[in-house]
Amino acid sequence: MKFKKRTHTCGELRESNIGQEVVLNGWVATRRDLGGVIFIELRDRYGITQVVFEPSYNAEAHELAKKLRSEYVISVEGKVRRRPEGTENPSIETGNIDVMADKLIILNQSETPPFQIEDNIDVSEDIRLKYRYLDLRRSEMQKNLLLRHKMYQLTRKYFDSNGFIEIETPVLMKSTPEGARDFLVPSRLHKGKFYALPQSPQTYKQILMVAGFDRYFQIVKCFRDEDLRADRQYEFTQIDVEMSFVDVDDVLEMAEGLMKIFFKEIWNIDLETPLPRLSFDEAMEKYGSDKPDLRFGLELITLNDVFKNSEFRVFKESISKNGIITGLVAQGCGDYTRNQLDGLTDYAKKLGAGGLIWMRVKENDLEAPIAKFLSEEEKKNLILRTNAQPGDLLLLLTGEKLKTLSIMGTLRLEMAKRMNLIKPDAKPSLLWVTDFPLFEWDDETKRYYAMHHPFTSPRIEDIPLMETDPLKVKARAYDLVLNGNEIAGGSIRIHNADLQAKMFKVLGISEAEAQEKFGFLMNAFKYGAPPHGGIAFGFDRLVMLFAGKSSIRDVIAFPKTSSGISLMDDSPSYVDEAQLAELHIKIR
Amino acid sequence: MKFKKRTHTCGELRESNIGQEVVLNGWVATRRDLGGVIFIELRDRYGITQVVFEPSYNAEAHELAKKLRSEYVISVEGKVRRRPEGTENPSIETGNIDVMADKLIILNQSETPPFQIEDNIDVSEDIRLKYRYLDLRRSEMQKNLLLRHKMYQLTRKYFDSNGFIEIETPVLMKSTPEGARDFLVPSRLHKGKFYALPQSPQTYKQILMVAGFDRYFQIVKCFRDEDLRADRQYEFTQIDVEMSFVDVDDVLEMAEGLMKIFFKEIWNIDLETPLPRLSFDEAMEKYGSDKPDLRFGLELITLNDVFKNSEFRVFKESISKNGIITGLVAQGCGDYTRNQLDGLTDYAKKLGAGGLIWMRVKENDLEAPIAKFLSEEEKKNLILRTNAQPGDLLLLLTGEKLKTLSIMGTLRLEMAKRMNLIKPDAKPSLLWVTDFPLFEWDDETKRYYAMHHPFTSPRIEDIPLMETDPLKVKARAYDLVLNGNEIAGGSIRIHNADLQAKMFKVLGISEAEAQEKFGFLMNAFKYGAPPHGGIAFGFDRLVMLFAGKSSIRDVIAFPKTSSGISLMDDSPSYVDEAQLAELHIKIR
Repeated sequence: MKFKKRTHTCGELRESNIGQEVVLNGWVATRRDLGGVIFIELRDRYGITQVVFEPSYNAEAHELAKKLRSEYVISVEGKVRRRPEGTENPSIETGNIDVMADKLIILNQSETPPFQIEDNIDVSEDIRLKYRYLDLRRSEMQKNLLLRHKMYQLTRKYFDSNGFIEIETPVLMKSTPEGARDFLVPSRLHKGKFYALPQSPQTYKQILMVAGFDRYFQIVKCFRDEDLRADRQYEFTQIDVEMSFVDVDDVLEMAEGLMKIFFKEIWNIDLETPLPRLSFDEAMEKYGSDKPDLRFGLELITLNDVFKNSEFRVFKESISKNGIITGLVAQGCGDYTRNQLDGLTDYAKKLGAGGLIWMRVKENDLEAPIAKFLSEEEKKNLILRTNAQPGDLLLLLTGEKLKTLSIMGTLRLEMAKRMNLIKPDAKPSLLWVTDFPLFEWDDETKRYYAMHHPFTSPRIEDIPLMETDPLKVKARAYDLVLNGNEIAGGSIRIHNADLQAKMFKVLGISEAEAQEKFGFLMNAFKYGAPPHGGIAFGFDRLVMLFAGKSSIRDVIAFPKTSSGISLMDDSPSYVDEAQLAELHIKIR
Repeated sequence: MKFKKRTHTCGELRESNIGQEVVLNGWVATRRDLGGVIFIELRDRYGITQVVFEPSYNAEAHELAKKLRSEYVISVEGKVRRRPEGTENPSIETGNIDVMADKLIILNQSETPPFQIEDNIDVSEDIRLKYRYLDLRRSEMQKNLLLRHKMYQLTRKYFDSNGFIEIETPVLMKSTPEGARDFLVPSRLHKGKFYALPQSPQTYKQILMVAGFDRYFQIVKCFRDEDLRADRQYEFTQIDVEMSFVDVDDVLEMAEGLMKIFFKEIWNIDLETPLPRLSFDEAMEKYGSDKPDLRFGLELITLNDVFKNSEFRVFKESISKNGIITGLVAQGCGDYTRNQLDGLTDYAKKLGAGGLIWMRVKENDLEAPIAKFLSEEEKKNLILRTNAQPGDLLLLLTGEKLKTLSIMGTLRLEMAKRMNLIKPDAKPSLLWVTDFPLFEWDDETKRYYAMHHPFTSPRIEDIPLMETDPLKVKARAYDLVLNGNEIAGGSIRIHNADLQAKMFKVLGISEAEAQEKFGFLMNAFKYGAPPHGGIAFGFDRLVMLFAGKSSIRDVIAFPKTSSGISLMDDSPSYVDEAQLAELHIKIR
């Protein structure tokens, strides 16, 4: 089909174009027939322009225009004119002009779409995903993907200008079943063997440092066969970065530079750096989270000193077991009903708390079920310590330290929501959490696990503790947190064989096992590994946050549902028996 | 390990730095001990700097330097000085200075590498791949990957500045077992079902056009489970491009713009555009290839008219069967021995030729086994037509047209090699091949196949031929050819349901089958598909050619061997039975 190609996009014409003959190509967004005159809003990625078909102006074009329906694709030739006074549309940029149509070519027809192509539609996400090509026509989705495009370019430009080399790492790699589940790919040439899709290019990027590339980055797809959520997909994209001859500060500074650019270019905010840093211990104790949202206060307060001599059984027991008593002040919530408080208690219990202690702060007293177990001095000190005011609600939890703090952290977020503490125009909160523990103890398997991964370096000064008190060893690891979301994480790696051996010893990994699991990286480390470290940004989540969305599916062109299905193309699907035979596998 | 961070890279210091205290970090490239003075060439990605350890300058550093071996990683503090006269090294950029070492820290040791870290090493590719982290330290490989990095950035900058949006398409998609074999990924949540890795994002990019993104690009990994060669890997990278509301010229112009940039930025050549275009028919007839190498002449000459009345049985038969008689003149090869000519004949036969006809051109005669079957007029006309000179060698092939031309095309390349026609400084030859046939006939299955894919648009003027003479229908398809290598290919797509139905009819694909195989794209096309077309560049091959290499493995950081093995990490590998059980598969 021959057609005239556009001279302008649908977002381009202005008053300065009045009088020009133009050609527009696009989709019919709306069509109105007013007393014989047909008005079309013609849409493309760049905007909307009104086209007018008047029988007296061009009868043939007008006649053909009667056939137009929503989402028809057309080519229109016509003359730009000033819209008649009073008919301007200030809500679109082309709103002062329209195009008087001389010639119309229908390039393609359309069935009636299952939903309107407009923002804020009331339709299930499943329908949107099934007809993703229509969903993606909506300006909201176009904006999200345009933002994503912009963030790709800003990222690469930034790292390129800082001397980083973009290197692609393999998608078909070796299965290393530590961490999450691998996606497997059967080999046709090697019966019974499998490739795995990378959960991250971690080992490869470390190898690139051994290879002397000095500074590496890549925006790369990674894969985890884990159950999906609003902010998790089987395949996800990360900005992967690694640097040689660096320490923590160097990596953090480099990452902050990228965030500075995003803040400026997307939000027009001058981000102040260096960013605040919270140690893991501090973040847990103050916010009950290793990814605290600091857009609001509502800090947790450790109350062990207040109750150190308490006769209240629960506190006494907790303190004797090295547990924690943590509290928070919900300002002005002293009027919560018993019903509301029972609700909060249930909420805390669902999170794993034994119970929730609440106290209504009155003018000269505390109104609480446990009040009778507390001494006057304890009550006084509690008020002093928390600075609670009459009319406030005090919430207390006690138990094993990290678990209790973490439950209180979730409760803190819940209270912030109930108290409406996060304003839409709140200043974004961006900070580092550092000094994570290197190990965590697993009670079930009775062994230590690496909190990040077994190549994470301990703090130099903590190395002696590895043999005496592993849980006290802090890692040279760091997470970047935006509004309570972890958006990046990384570490300085171990590059020294002795230290690596020490690490494996604490983890109870034998030399043979280490060789089997991490052999190729270990081998590489024998030939002059430089000190190195890096970071990886969760790109989907980053775009989601900068787009102001709450689901990563809104910033991914073709996402899968929470059960891993692509509703548009119906994958996964059954395949030919012959395909399976070639791959030497069969269904169980 | 604490160490001083570099103040300069190993490629940075010049005479202007003389007298400065500096810190360098890097690898020991060479170590020479000359009469108590130790010279180290310290290497990083940026270059090499000589470091001098003199006992009289700093005894402690000198003592420690005795321990240094190849590929040790060190941090050196010292003072930049002018090299003593006569010891300058003009082959490196830092060759006029060296660094007198004050302090040495050994950051890491290295075992003796299995090969020297230098260019032009004599070591098997398998060893290089096994120790890829050492192979990648060689400046040759570093240069290749730096070029690759540069080409990524140039590509994205170009498309971004032309209004293209970068969009990621899924890696886990539906298996469409047309074309090459799919890599399959078993689903854990959906027993017996599989995802496939994309052979190309073809369907998705067309859907993005339906979604109105207007201009899309992506540098993207694709996957084919086909046997590997020097220029083929399981996973390969392509520059994927699609545009709406365009015709052939628009896509070609956009692609030429990118090539102009590559030529200028990499080879400093001002590429003249528009590029020459050869039709498929012309390319086959003149060069026996749809990706002709025009760095040299050696054109094929169709000789049917010369022999149209020939009594020579072979020619007579060929002409009666609509076959071709094609010849080429190998200038100055008239002295080829019988042995050499038998060799050429074998070569042609291996390619599938029935035989090779050769003639030595003499002053007044043709010396050839078949000379006696030719009339004087035929001989005279042959000489006239080919413009062969005494001393030349004439090579003739005859048989079915495309097959014979294709064999002659391969022979042309072989003769160019033997005759040394491709000079190292030859001007690169870049051209389009266009007007490919839309269909090819398969004698085995007795049906037509789409030469590109079933969404390729025919030339508008050829549409009526689809029903009467499908083999005469030309496609709106195009390939970009650099020095005889196809580096890009694409087409204008069908966007119209009627034409698509016609296409499927010729291909013998029923509506039900079309729905099953291409359903989601067909469905998308019901809702207003714009005219669109695109192109995809083979990125690995492109980098290979611009790097002047002959294997794509030299421009890929971690390639697989020809049997699909990664020698470095030993993938593919066996996996746990438990992993397979979760995926509902077992080995046959």
